[in-house]
Amino acid sequence: MNNVERLIDDVRERFGPKVALTDRADIEPWLTDWRGRFHGEAAAILAPASTDEVAEIVGLAAAHRVPLVPQGGNTSMVAGATPPADGSAVILSLRRMNRIRSIDRLASVAIAEAGVILSNLHDAVEEQGVRFPLTLGARGSCTIGGLTATNAGGTQVLRFGTMRSLVAGVEAVLPDGSIHDGLSALKKDNRGYNLDQLLVGSEGTLGIITAVALRLVVAVTSRAVAWAGVQSPEQALELLRFLEARTRAVEGFELVAGDSLALVFRHIPGTRLPLESEQPWHVLIEATTADADTDIAAEIQALLAQALEQGFLTDAVIAASESQAEAFWRIRDSISEAERAEGQTLAHDISVPVGRMPSFILEAKNEVERRFPGTIASGFGHLGDGNIHFHVRAGSRTVADWYASEGTEITRFVDDLVTAAGGSISAEHGIGQMKIDELERLAPPGRIHALQAIKQALDPLGLMNPGKLVPLKR
Amino acid sequence: MNNVERLIDDVRERFGPKVALTDRADIEPWLTDWRGRFHGEAAAILAPASTDEVAEIVGLAAAHRVPLVPQGGNTSMVAGATPPADGSAVILSLRRMNRIRSIDRLASVAIAEAGVILSNLHDAVEEQGVRFPLTLGARGSCTIGGLTATNAGGTQVLRFGTMRSLVAGVEAVLPDGSIHDGLSALKKDNRGYNLDQLLVGSEGTLGIITAVALRLVVAVTSRAVAWAGVQSPEQALELLRFLEARTRAVEGFELVAGDSLALVFRHIPGTRLPLESEQPWHVLIEATTADADTDIAAEIQALLAQALEQGFLTDAVIAASESQAEAFWRIRDSISEAERAEGQTLAHDISVPVGRMPSFILEAKNEVERRFPGTIASGFGHLGDGNIHFHVRAGSRTVADWYASEGTEITRFVDDLVTAAGGSISAEHGIGQMKIDELERLAPPGRIHALQAIKQALDPLGLMNPGKLVPLKR
Repeated sequence: MNNVERLIDDVRERFGPKVALTDRADIEPWLTDWRGRFHGEAAAILAPASTDEVAEIVGLAAAHRVPLVPQGGNTSMVAGATPPADGSAVILSLRRMNRIRSIDRLASVAIAEAGVILSNLHDAVEEQGVRFPLTLGARGSCTIGGLTATNAGGTQVLRFGTMRSLVAGVEAVLPDGSIHDGLSALKKDNRGYNLDQLLVGSEGTLGIITAVALRLVVAVTSRAVAWAGVQSPEQALELLRFLEARTRAVEGFELVAGDSLALVFRHIPGTRLPLESEQPWHVLIEATTADADTDIAAEIQALLAQALEQGFLTDAVIAASESQAEAFWRIRDSISEAERAEGQTLAHDISVPVGRMPSFILEAKNEVERRFPGTIASGFGHLGDGNIHFHVRAGSRTVADWYASEGTEITRFVDDLVTAAGGSISAEHGIGQMKIDELERLAPPGRIHALQAIKQALDPLGLMNPGKLVPLKR
Repeated sequence: MNNVERLIDDVRERFGPKVALTDRADIEPWLTDWRGRFHGEAAAILAPASTDEVAEIVGLAAAHRVPLVPQGGNTSMVAGATPPADGSAVILSLRRMNRIRSIDRLASVAIAEAGVILSNLHDAVEEQGVRFPLTLGARGSCTIGGLTATNAGGTQVLRFGTMRSLVAGVEAVLPDGSIHDGLSALKKDNRGYNLDQLLVGSEGTLGIITAVALRLVVAVTSRAVAWAGVQSPEQALELLRFLEARTRAVEGFELVAGDSLALVFRHIPGTRLPLESEQPWHVLIEATTADADTDIAAEIQALLAQALEQGFLTDAVIAASESQAEAFWRIRDSISEAERAEGQTLAHDISVPVGRMPSFILEAKNEVERRFPGTIASGFGHLGDGNIHFHVRAGSRTVADWYASEGTEITRFVDDLVTAAGGSISAEHGIGQMKIDELERLAPPGRIHALQAIKQALDPLGLMNPGKLVPLKR
């Protein structure tokens, strides 16, 4: 028997067979990342149902020196939850830990276990008349543990921040098997380094997040969704500033390039341009209110009319119904799918300081298309956060092995532009396996050293999601 | 020559005499903590004027194995900036690094060096029509570096959070002499563990903070300050919930016990009760608006009238002028001074979950006064943050050496009550030297181990503010 088999035996003996799945059919779907680019191997999925079970499993894994790859909904965009290919590790699924332990309306805090699916949390708190604001495309399958471990973002970050701002406390099993309980959600607590914040965004490399205390906000009573045409990313940002100076209601502000839009209309059935006229750039605006007396649609309509007059946009329409609002969002959410339907696409989730983003989008597009003639580059997404998804399509350079032959070179080129602009090569998706080489190439050596030192300090055996986030010491 | 002398020599040779002060008169005032309880010794104050100078000094200190005690305004409430008594360390003053590098209104971010005094920052951003909201009693002498390193709180936390929420990025010299530059203040950045957040609240034990990117908020156009009488802490919290459900304007909500108030009126000249009638408990309420069209005083007045009608308070008055508003705040800010004038007082800066605070205040007072007959205990402060300053006065137990003879026992008793209530023995003041034994006694071993491991990983020579925050390994 090898170490992995010994661990599986021990877990079975201690907790019974359903905590250590070894049936190939059960494991197979969880060995490949969401994008389908990384394929791993694992002899078992361990599936504990409680924090104490996780703690025991971490202890057993340490005793047998078997690495653990924590997994929630397996929706990582950077293969952060895919096990190594050599089968040396096992998957630790948190999906059975799916209980919402409490919803405290008065304190505006919910405590959810790691395996709770985001949309289930949304529904549960909504039933209590409150709201958890963070949301993203994968909400039907991504989990609270994964969202926390990756400091996920999404479309409402503009107003409420990323997971980091919404996490009031974390419960986690540390690599030494001890349970860190930060769930009391004290508003002020200065007892040493903030382990909760260190665990947010640590991608499972410093311990296993088992439950999270989440800040809730007041429920939305109505929303207004608008679509506007603008001349440039610069004008889009001016429009955002214009709105933000006049209302606190804007919580989504998504930039879309005209040519991305054309792909959506070509490939996604039932979609059409909300505006009367073609526009070079577009923004999707969502505003909400918690006040039943506020006519948010009228307020936004008036502001957009004012913005049109003052030259901050060239055309705009406000969704007349909830189904039209959904249709607007569907256009935005279909861009990646449309680009994939059009052909090979390299995606880059990047950020630069908000004020630099408009010029960055245009300059980076030009630089990429000049350096790799035939490609088509475009950026879209969360302009107000300084975060766009910068996609490079193969265009006339399409060949069967384009990703392998040119992918690395193009991504390096984009990442160099981002770094030169003082930006981040990972805005909201994390590092995982996919970006670890680029992190090592571009981060200052002092920073890499600090990451390695912290990793080594808390996980000296290197058993927590190895090969993710932290470049190996050389 | 010993190591300290060698370091001083090297610093002088490299940067000239004014970067290494050794005149006793220059050093003396900085050897004692703000409360006057801890006295340290140091042969020099090193006073670099730039980040590069700090980096070189950190390198020289490492070469000579001399510990550095970073110091800003020396206003720590837990002796966090007082050097060890044996003279083994030198003080690293950041006070010459007092430049505000930039104020970006559009991005709502200011970059201030560590030595910038808080009130200077307030003035500078106000001149630009924006606002840095965090404030506290020591604003005229405390510095941005110290506020960041201790995750300071203060009176506006209710609305804007502690320093942790207001820090957008940190520049720091790490113990290995490398410069961590987190100042780009990207809104989204998931490139590994968040070192900025790790440095916030690290009390100088993981590196020297040299500059901070700070979030700004819209300027206040007017404020309303009210004083209300309530029957109990429970009613005070109900009043807060009542107000918060109806307005977002409340940013200060301070609870004051009737007997604390009596001490203020006895010892602080020119103070008097703002209300017509005696009340067992009081709250000071501050509300602000950024909207020139809002009559905030009228809004709060109307809400308080409604609250009176619905039984959420028993009496209230709104300040009729800015000078009356100042007078209300002066009462609140004089409580500690009045208690010290009355006699020996043990202060405890503690937090519990907000909802538990009302009962905790009453129960803890009873328990302490029963266990130590003759003492008088009371809690006051930031009720909405679940954070009060719980003070125990010697009362009839007054003896010359009361702090020495009973202080530790009483503090342990209070800390046990706090811990049993799921609270923190340090809400906003930090651990420093003063609370390090209690942290070690009460924190779970796994947590202490994690703190030690992180400290050891980033500062293997143990030269960064030794003896503060992190209990020594035994």
